[in-house]
Amino acid sequence: MENQPVIKPYVIGLDLGGTNSVFGIVDSRGEIKATTAIKTQAYEKVEDYVNASVDALQIIIDQVGGIQNIKAMGIGAPNGNYYNGTIEFAPNLIWGHSGIVPLADLFKEKLGIPVALTNDANAAAIGEMTYGVARGMKNFIMLTLGTGVGSGIVVNGQLVYGCDGFAGELGHVIMVRENGRPCGCGRKGCLEAYCSATGVARTAREFLDTTDEPSLLRDMKAEDITSLDVSIAAGKGDKLAKRVYEFTGEMLGEACANFAAFSSPEAFIFFGGLTKAGDLLMKPIVKSYREHALKIFRDKPQFLISGLNGSSAAVLGASAVGWEI
Amino acid sequence: MENQPVIKPYVIGLDLGGTNSVFGIVDSRGEIKATTAIKTQAYEKVEDYVNASVDALQIIIDQVGGIQNIKAMGIGAPNGNYYNGTIEFAPNLIWGHSGIVPLADLFKEKLGIPVALTNDANAAAIGEMTYGVARGMKNFIMLTLGTGVGSGIVVNGQLVYGCDGFAGELGHVIMVRENGRPCGCGRKGCLEAYCSATGVARTAREFLDTTDEPSLLRDMKAEDITSLDVSIAAGKGDKLAKRVYEFTGEMLGEACANFAAFSSPEAFIFFGGLTKAGDLLMKPIVKSYREHALKIFRDKPQFLISGLNGSSAAVLGASAVGWEI
Repeated sequence: MENQPVIKPYVIGLDLGGTNSVFGIVDSRGEIKATTAIKTQAYEKVEDYVNASVDALQIIIDQVGGIQNIKAMGIGAPNGNYYNGTIEFAPNLIWGHSGIVPLADLFKEKLGIPVALTNDANAAAIGEMTYGVARGMKNFIMLTLGTGVGSGIVVNGQLVYGCDGFAGELGHVIMVRENGRPCGCGRKGCLEAYCSATGVARTAREFLDTTDEPSLLRDMKAEDITSLDVSIAAGKGDKLAKRVYEFTGEMLGEACANFAAFSSPEAFIFFGGLTKAGDLLMKPIVKSYREHALKIFRDKPQFLISGLNGSSAAVLGASAVGWEI
Repeated sequence: MENQPVIKPYVIGLDLGGTNSVFGIVDSRGEIKATTAIKTQAYEKVEDYVNASVDALQIIIDQVGGIQNIKAMGIGAPNGNYYNGTIEFAPNLIWGHSGIVPLADLFKEKLGIPVALTNDANAAAIGEMTYGVARGMKNFIMLTLGTGVGSGIVVNGQLVYGCDGFAGELGHVIMVRENGRPCGCGRKGCLEAYCSATGVARTAREFLDTTDEPSLLRDMKAEDITSLDVSIAAGKGDKLAKRVYEFTGEMLGEACANFAAFSSPEAFIFFGGLTKAGDLLMKPIVKSYREHALKIFRDKPQFLISGLNGSSAAVLGASAVGWEI
């Protein structure tokens, strides 16, 4: 029995958000065995953030029988660089906005297990490959439709990181070249400026401003409208709200037609808040994709919504990065 | 000495064009040892084409000491599918336009060596990796600017073939969404409709039509103008002709900015007739790329012209596919 390999049944996942840092201990089937969380912004120095994380983690590590049961840790973080295990100039992180933070190494030192880090959209793609609807797929594109538009691209079964670890910024392809909407990145006309949750709210305000069409959304203050309000109004049959989702889906479909010319994926997988709109969004995406794609790609890809449970999807994605080490 | 591995020092490359099929026997350093050619269109049946090819090949195979010195054969062909070794519905091939031709298998049977096939732009990318300016690069994008615009994308050191073998059709990303030029693919506004050799000639005709600006190109019949004429006129200082190349380069730079968001390559490599214009084309590409790229990608990629000798580049590219088997 001496040479029996030691099986470590769990990985730690950390979904590092601007507000909360959520930790989960996950088994190989994607079942979350224990979770904990800390406030990301309560710490000015990254060392204090890591110490607080490890204190919180210790409790749930003990619950699963100790660190010897844990193979590795995966982190999904904004501006995460997989190659270096660093977070680089992340605007929303007090301890990470002004430089390069070697977060993977800091956790590795404290925990004594391998740690890998990638950006949140890449983590979602790896999560989908490990536990979700992309199991067995070698070529697919994940689009995360949240506050921004992120992406994780898988080619030949591998995440595309590019020469610098930052590939897969499909939220920032230019979709509108004339009079495009300003984007948070400082340029104009990016996909993200139209097809993120905030983009959907902007589209709704534009439609309200430029037409006299009656709409349930007129009962709200324009600046308070969110993509969820648009989705609820559309669900009640509001025509203007429906057109907002049609417009959003059309642009996503056009974008996917261009992406297909790049990597000919077997599926586009959508993730994040906007996907709650379901067919309201997905039907226009598929219709527009078919209208715009090159003939050889027209009927090939599937259009899927993430198979990971919403609230825990980000932790699962991050944990999946741990299995890849 | 019995177990000494047999070293086969050569591969065959076939550059299969609509008019000519050019064969070369190439060593591992990219030196062409012997060449031959047949007319592609002289044969109505693919079996006759293959027989004629093998007859022509036999002579140069003998020149390098026989088939036992040849490791494999690589083919670069329009509509070539790497996964299946087939040519699929190639509009310009008499024996290939109406179906799926298993060309790799046909050559393999006759020659008794492994044969692999890919499209011409992918072959160019593999050639550049094997013998050219992309040696040692793991992430780059090759754009071939000829009659059409083709592309070969390398990610993590591998060609991107996608789920079906047809990935990398960057000539058919949509660049102009309103009133775009009709493209040969049946859609409108594709990169190829603007930035191919024929696209350059179209741009010149448009500029001549829509301005009164004097130009050396006005001495020609509009319908006879080629990209070479535009290049020659620009070389003589013709302002309108220069603007044609600026326009072309600007659009290529914008396209590359979007491609960088996909795979963050370390280089964009340009190949084909249009690159003969040199700085006339390359300077506007780089300028426009820097204006349009997302900040993190702005200063990263190199912009290079293919390092393979023009007339033999396609054969070299095809032969390089043979080394990959």
